[in-house]
Amino acid sequence: MKIQNLEELDTPCLILDKSLLEKNCFNARKKCLELNTILRPHVKTPKSIEIAKIALDNQIGPITVSTLNEAEYFAGAGFKDILYAVCIIPKKLKRLNFIQQKYSCIIRIVVDSTYVAQEILKYSNLHNANFEILIEIDCGEGRSGLDYQDKMIGEISRVFEPNHKTKLLGVLTHAGHSYSTKDKNEIISISNIERKEAMASLKKLLNFEDKSQIISIGSTPTMFLASNLDGISEVRAGIYMFWDLAQASRGICKIEDIALTVLASVIGHNHQRKRIIIDAGSLALSKDKSANKFMPEAGYGLICNPHTAIPFEGLNISEVHQEHGSIKIKSIDWFDKLPIGSQVRILPNHACLTCAAYENYNILENGSIIDSWSRTNGW
Amino acid sequence: MKIQNLEELDTPCLILDKSLLEKNCFNARKKCLELNTILRPHVKTPKSIEIAKIALDNQIGPITVSTLNEAEYFAGAGFKDILYAVCIIPKKLKRLNFIQQKYSCIIRIVVDSTYVAQEILKYSNLHNANFEILIEIDCGEGRSGLDYQDKMIGEISRVFEPNHKTKLLGVLTHAGHSYSTKDKNEIISISNIERKEAMASLKKLLNFEDKSQIISIGSTPTMFLASNLDGISEVRAGIYMFWDLAQASRGICKIEDIALTVLASVIGHNHQRKRIIIDAGSLALSKDKSANKFMPEAGYGLICNPHTAIPFEGLNISEVHQEHGSIKIKSIDWFDKLPIGSQVRILPNHACLTCAAYENYNILENGSIIDSWSRTNGW
Repeated sequence: MKIQNLEELDTPCLILDKSLLEKNCFNARKKCLELNTILRPHVKTPKSIEIAKIALDNQIGPITVSTLNEAEYFAGAGFKDILYAVCIIPKKLKRLNFIQQKYSCIIRIVVDSTYVAQEILKYSNLHNANFEILIEIDCGEGRSGLDYQDKMIGEISRVFEPNHKTKLLGVLTHAGHSYSTKDKNEIISISNIERKEAMASLKKLLNFEDKSQIISIGSTPTMFLASNLDGISEVRAGIYMFWDLAQASRGICKIEDIALTVLASVIGHNHQRKRIIIDAGSLALSKDKSANKFMPEAGYGLICNPHTAIPFEGLNISEVHQEHGSIKIKSIDWFDKLPIGSQVRILPNHACLTCAAYENYNILENGSIIDSWSRTNGW
Repeated sequence: MKIQNLEELDTPCLILDKSLLEKNCFNARKKCLELNTILRPHVKTPKSIEIAKIALDNQIGPITVSTLNEAEYFAGAGFKDILYAVCIIPKKLKRLNFIQQKYSCIIRIVVDSTYVAQEILKYSNLHNANFEILIEIDCGEGRSGLDYQDKMIGEISRVFEPNHKTKLLGVLTHAGHSYSTKDKNEIISISNIERKEAMASLKKLLNFEDKSQIISIGSTPTMFLASNLDGISEVRAGIYMFWDLAQASRGICKIEDIALTVLASVIGHNHQRKRIIIDAGSLALSKDKSANKFMPEAGYGLICNPHTAIPFEGLNISEVHQEHGSIKIKSIDWFDKLPIGSQVRILPNHACLTCAAYENYNILENGSIIDSWSRTNGW
């Protein structure tokens, strides 16, 4: 298969394979349907309206965001049910509430301290603002959140009152430490703990409106390896839409599932040092090397045939500078196979970070680039 | 000193100390003046019109860029003498020439292969386009460019003819390997080689218009440690405008010279794991850890007093996620010193990469944020 209009694109740029994206999104929805839970896609990965809709089976639906910029961008496109999954601070309530009011949407917020809970209540009373709250639980990642047995969960919940404009809905946790292993049994164990601790933490809640009980969990690995999510209201995951080498290196996806690549051009041949130089460097790829723990051959990205996205045996990016990527070659035959001006596609380590350098996705479907979809960046 | 309006800023964001920027730019101009050469600031670091003008003593002047996007952005602001310091490929000539014609500017281009040289000449003949060419020399970095004794230098130069619309002006080299050491004598030695090999390579050129002979060299460390740049037409450097921990860790600047910081907010206290969580993660800082080779305490960035930008003893970012940075603390006193909602400033590893996530700089002068300057990103 040859992509007819690939050479018309300026490099570096992103290529998104629409069929793979749709397949990946379908598989996640299917998994959540099987486990009788709701998928709330984390749009911090794509930051694109078109892609969020594909994740939701071509509908507007519940989404997760990581910044208020994303919240505003998606609210502006009609998304009404948004979860901002990073702990809020009082100063950000004004902007958050502005977005809620401007677009008639709800942006659920997350807390893990009594202080912030009190400030939310104060703000709500002072400005007659509606907020929906989840308490963050740390189920082992060691980042934000409270241990599921922490008495502060009860203290936070005591701040809120039933039938108030500000509602405590339940708890949220994220088993981000599932990325640290490639052992399927360990991921299954993390997934079980994620579910059990989230459910157990709910029992610590006081003054709680049982009817709206929300238990929000999720990470891509724990979602796909879960066999039972009974009692879990919703699952948050994002990277499954694109996949990347970090996930492939952990066996969560296959390399051929990866929908997102960087298109680059060969800009030089360093004969003396046996290196091919391309125009994708640390800005075009990011300096993330998170695949290398379990896939040391990944380097800063695997070099692929530009038309098929199949990796060339043994070719990776060994070094990056701001606008240069260097590919060490063992055989000088590669100088003939990849002449100056030719294109390559690169499988990235971590798609969330790679995509953040770009303003748009070039959409590949049925062997040609059919569209360009924009994304948002920044805060 | 307390910055009065710091708390009005949404975090994360960039803070640029204008006095430090001006001092840093003055020092580089002074150095080049002393060595009787021209400074051609590399604007890939700031990507900002206001900052480029400060680098040029509040004037329009010669600049270096790393992308055609930058070339277009600066040409649109009136910059006429631009050097695109990454090897060109034939496909990019059309856009480059479009920018040249639209803005009546010259964007000097760089080649290191006979093939590309021939294609430039063809394009020039076919489209009646003016190009100015430098041949890239590899003085030891091992990225792009030819060894100064490579016979291909002569071959490339033979492609061009005197009195043609496309002019071969000379040579360019970049001692990027000066970043790999903190040994001043080694940097001085690299600086000497950079100059000598660039000058020697010029002798390989044939069909050469001697009158316009250009020898363009540069990296920030080799510029500041050079004691003799006789015969060198111009020096390219960029990071000196902001400085960062990578440069400080190599002794090229002092920490108090760093003009660019990230402002972040404390969003959580993880009491169980003794961590302070901030809202600057891998997107807000980049995953660059290049300071850590010589400054292992740098982590993903040093945490500073938000008003003075003086580092807090022993506080760095030990772990990053997309929108979270984790600060390990030894004493729980830090929970009182840095309450939830309080701000910190972060000295980044590598300012070029950190800045790329942002659309603007918040300008700090005389104890307040006085302005916002935009920057360009992408390709």
